[in-house]
Amino acid sequence: MKADLLITGISQLVTAQGTGPKHGAQMRDLNITEHAALAIANGLIAWVGPSSEFAGEAADTIDIQHRAVVPGLIDPHTHAVWAGNRLADFEARTSGVTYEQILTAGGGIWSTIRATAAQSESELTALAKPRIDALLRSGATVIEVKSGYGFAPAAEIAMLRVISVLAAATPAHIIPTLLIHVPPKDASERGEYVSEICENLIPHVAREELAQAVDVFVEKEAWSAPEAEQILTAARQNSLAVKLHTEQFHRVGGIELGLRLNALSIDHLEACAPEQLAAIASSPTIATILPGVTLHLGLPAAPGRALIDAGVAVAVGTDLNPGSSPLFSAQMALALAIRLNGLTAHEALVAGTVNAATALGLTDAGRIETGQPADFLILDSSDWRDLVYTLGANPVREIWIKGEKVAV
Amino acid sequence: MKADLLITGISQLVTAQGTGPKHGAQMRDLNITEHAALAIANGLIAWVGPSSEFAGEAADTIDIQHRAVVPGLIDPHTHAVWAGNRLADFEARTSGVTYEQILTAGGGIWSTIRATAAQSESELTALAKPRIDALLRSGATVIEVKSGYGFAPAAEIAMLRVISVLAAATPAHIIPTLLIHVPPKDASERGEYVSEICENLIPHVAREELAQAVDVFVEKEAWSAPEAEQILTAARQNSLAVKLHTEQFHRVGGIELGLRLNALSIDHLEACAPEQLAAIASSPTIATILPGVTLHLGLPAAPGRALIDAGVAVAVGTDLNPGSSPLFSAQMALALAIRLNGLTAHEALVAGTVNAATALGLTDAGRIETGQPADFLILDSSDWRDLVYTLGANPVREIWIKGEKVAV
Repeated sequence: MKADLLITGISQLVTAQGTGPKHGAQMRDLNITEHAALAIANGLIAWVGPSSEFAGEAADTIDIQHRAVVPGLIDPHTHAVWAGNRLADFEARTSGVTYEQILTAGGGIWSTIRATAAQSESELTALAKPRIDALLRSGATVIEVKSGYGFAPAAEIAMLRVISVLAAATPAHIIPTLLIHVPPKDASERGEYVSEICENLIPHVAREELAQAVDVFVEKEAWSAPEAEQILTAARQNSLAVKLHTEQFHRVGGIELGLRLNALSIDHLEACAPEQLAAIASSPTIATILPGVTLHLGLPAAPGRALIDAGVAVAVGTDLNPGSSPLFSAQMALALAIRLNGLTAHEALVAGTVNAATALGLTDAGRIETGQPADFLILDSSDWRDLVYTLGANPVREIWIKGEKVAV
Repeated sequence: MKADLLITGISQLVTAQGTGPKHGAQMRDLNITEHAALAIANGLIAWVGPSSEFAGEAADTIDIQHRAVVPGLIDPHTHAVWAGNRLADFEARTSGVTYEQILTAGGGIWSTIRATAAQSESELTALAKPRIDALLRSGATVIEVKSGYGFAPAAEIAMLRVISVLAAATPAHIIPTLLIHVPPKDASERGEYVSEICENLIPHVAREELAQAVDVFVEKEAWSAPEAEQILTAARQNSLAVKLHTEQFHRVGGIELGLRLNALSIDHLEACAPEQLAAIASSPTIATILPGVTLHLGLPAAPGRALIDAGVAVAVGTDLNPGSSPLFSAQMALALAIRLNGLTAHEALVAGTVNAATALGLTDAGRIETGQPADFLILDSSDWRDLVYTLGANPVREIWIKGEKVAV
């Protein structure tokens, strides 16, 4: 084997193995190789194992001096494109107004929709780029980005175009999702809006390949489960994957709908009940938990420990958005999942790599294995656990994507 | 007035005014000047006000392009010098073992004491320097650093020498504190150890000016209130200020002791009871809360909201240490105090500037006022609230200390 580059001096090389969701106890199965080396050829991992066993040739060698290497992180849930800010909401909430009261009063998401509509695509791109950079710096080599602050179909398409411009402007792999976020304020317009989404917007997005999945926010103040079913059925008919924001504040039927539709993921789950766990565990659907929301809104945490103990495959995302999770770090999302959702360090790493990849329908991300893209992180520590132990500083020293060190 | 430098283009210049502790509602009194300018002469603030009112001369001018300026943050409680790590404790805790069980079993602080004793002063300095750099990057221009992992008097002195070497190696202002952390494991040796501390260590530290205050960890597994009184009385007799770690897990009499001894601050207070608040409020002592511990250990938060509502002067610190708060960011400590302790953005800024200064006995830090050192932060935003709203990224763009921009 002839490699372009051999990386030696890896104190610990840590990865989950094999594709597909890791359920329950499988989330603690990490492969940890000490004194490891990693060979790269054509942007792919050509060989990985104990340094002493490397028998190939390499055009170049880098000794990383006893530092740990982990897979590039995957942030499977962000709303990184927005305009305006929600600092007034933030002040209101710290004075005792609830997030739902703000939303009902036409603040919250609606204020972001108004601010986003007022900006051009190039302005939106300029606003979003530093957020993508921050996520990348925190170790995210794959980042999902949702539309959803457009509302009007043309504005949703504009958001997806912004996301595709961002994708071309960053070395990170950007996965675009069409989010059908909130219904028209006038209840009589809901049916017509859903028809427009199903008959025109979704087919257009599928045809132009502007998104890989459709997501719906199922909640008392947003879409009902039957409305979501209409929208997501249209997505399936157009060969798009489906995802749901559900059970954030209330039991609204979104979990059952997601499992029935074979959703890639059901996200949030703060209000998920014990009797719902077994059905999720027996499905291929990923449960994506979002601890930034728990910290920012001070609401109950999604039952991460109970989900995993019940055999569910859990992923973790930042949910980066201005209203409920101004969390600009995939590393910190994992650190928070340990403290707020009861995950162990091992489970957090699986949740932020292979399971997050599965939540995006990806089989070529989140693992350090021969044949996979050479997307990995070199940490500032010889112990990989510092990745998820550290609070308020970035333990990621170098970010490598497709075999190249990224400048961020 | 002739300034060395005039900084213009300040969207908002935000500061608390006047020296001394801000109690209760005073913690919301910020002075916010829009379209401001700031003149610096000889490292001090020579003038501050609306740009249009500047009538002096300046040798140089910098336009910061509509960005917010706040005082340099003050981290009034850190244990930034240690060796070894507590990753094994971290794994044990995420598997259900409590912090107190680990401490009782001789892990926890004791494992850090053993690891710290095994390192030379230059090795300890090299380990601590990146932590000081991280705190500085997060906006802390004044950083308190405690000894306390030495145990043996000579090892405590060595830690204080390391802190003084660090002070010379960073532009941040380092405030050293002698911490009497844990008693001998053999109960029969406690009396003799206290005598040694009072009769030899404290007088030596005072004579050599190695610390400005003495701190004692008052807790069931650490020192009793009567023992702490002996130690802190010796500190007072040697003209050193006093501080206490108290009411972290239990009501142990440390609050009452601290108020009686006119302590600069009483720190932690997670187990503080409603009937203790009025006495703190009527004292000049600062209540320093440490939200990193709440996040990391998953224990109840100190009652920040109740303390302020009762009229107490509250400060916020990182408590940076390997066991209970691996929090390397003064900015994030404030962001967490809002989410976990119920502070508003205004209160958090006061807690992290003037009140933190008072907790260290400083009158020349934490404010942007004529005659004060020109220690301030330029944010990456035109709205100062982004400083405490942002999670997982650093909203601090530039750090200025004594009128000079710091490279970190």
